[in-house]
Amino acid sequence: MGGVSTADRAERVPKQDRSRATRQRLLEAAVACLAEHGWAGSTVSVVAERAGVSRGAAQHHFPTREDLFTAAVEYVAEERSTALRALFPEGARADDRRAVIAALVDLYTGPLFRAALHLWVAASNEEQLRPRVTELESRVGRETHRIAVDLLGADESRPGVRETVQGLLDMARGLGLANLLTDDGARRERVVAQWAALLDEALG
Amino acid sequence: MGGVSTADRAERVPKQDRSRATRQRLLEAAVACLAEHGWAGSTVSVVAERAGVSRGAAQHHFPTREDLFTAAVEYVAEERSTALRALFPEGARADDRRAVIAALVDLYTGPLFRAALHLWVAASNEEQLRPRVTELESRVGRETHRIAVDLLGADESRPGVRETVQGLLDMARGLGLANLLTDDGARRERVVAQWAALLDEALG
Repeated sequence: MGGVSTADRAERVPKQDRSRATRQRLLEAAVACLAEHGWAGSTVSVVAERAGVSRGAAQHHFPTREDLFTAAVEYVAEERSTALRALFPEGARADDRRAVIAALVDLYTGPLFRAALHLWVAASNEEQLRPRVTELESRVGRETHRIAVDLLGADESRPGVRETVQGLLDMARGLGLANLLTDDGARRERVVAQWAALLDEALG
Repeated sequence: MGGVSTADRAERVPKQDRSRATRQRLLEAAVACLAEHGWAGSTVSVVAERAGVSRGAAQHHFPTREDLFTAAVEYVAEERSTALRALFPEGARADDRRAVIAALVDLYTGPLFRAALHLWVAASNEEQLRPRVTELESRVGRETHRIAVDLLGADESRPGVRETVQGLLDMARGLGLANLLTDDGARRERVVAQWAALLDEALG
């Protein structure tokens, strides 16, 4: 037992690592907060408390509310993209396509999508937020498109293939929206099965 | 020019019609307000002023904020459904299908969708709003699905056809979301053209 004091422990962890861990805790707390309470209920103070970090430390990492929440959505989106690629380490194989499509749709049904949606909708009325979120949305959208093309083994040099994949991701976002107020899982599963069959045929 | 006093004019218009016209002005102002300012900026007072109606008259028609905004989204959705059916009075004809799909997607790119989206997202965090909006969403969604099936001439007795149409409407909602912060019209047109071709084939 004896125990190790906080000061002792802090000394053993390099400063840079501690700073990175604090940043990560703040980002994860910010996404959870946005998903649960929406933009109006999400401030730097609320997130700092949730993350167990002082308000000053939070502001050291993220000087403004906009900095914190756009960084948070981007961070979690990157984490999810990495996890998605890791699910299919072999990349595209025709027999995996339905599993890939289901996994792509899953990107839009969890807390990250809820959080992103709150940020998105708030940005449509707040001039301070709008350019940041527009830029973030386009960056994350491009990356998701790249992953989809890779994992589906889609040949974008063929006419229509690029738009086929884009339409799939638009449908996935629409399914995410349909899941916002109620659990739409059973219907979603049937729609995804049918669209996966259509896509499989269209992608050849 | 001589002119007719407001009192004279009021007397000639039956009271019931005036009441209906006031109600309609409030509903249209409520949707415009929600689309422009979001839920946080949308109150009964703001809408009453925009509609040129006294706050008391507004509250006579709509006792609560929730009453006003759910009624407004429902009213405008019905107007748009009627207009959509009127665009294709002949109903389903195979060569019209791409036009029907484009018109269905258009339902989700204007002020009504923006307004509905604000209400939807607000409802996900507000217990008072949530059951009302859930019920409204399901009613409007069912009606849109019926119109889509009719206008596309889709035979839902064939396996997969129901889910094909549902997926199309989910894609349309996703395209609406992608149009929230930027004008996504050019990309959307290409996606819709490609999916209209795929869906035309799938629906036979």
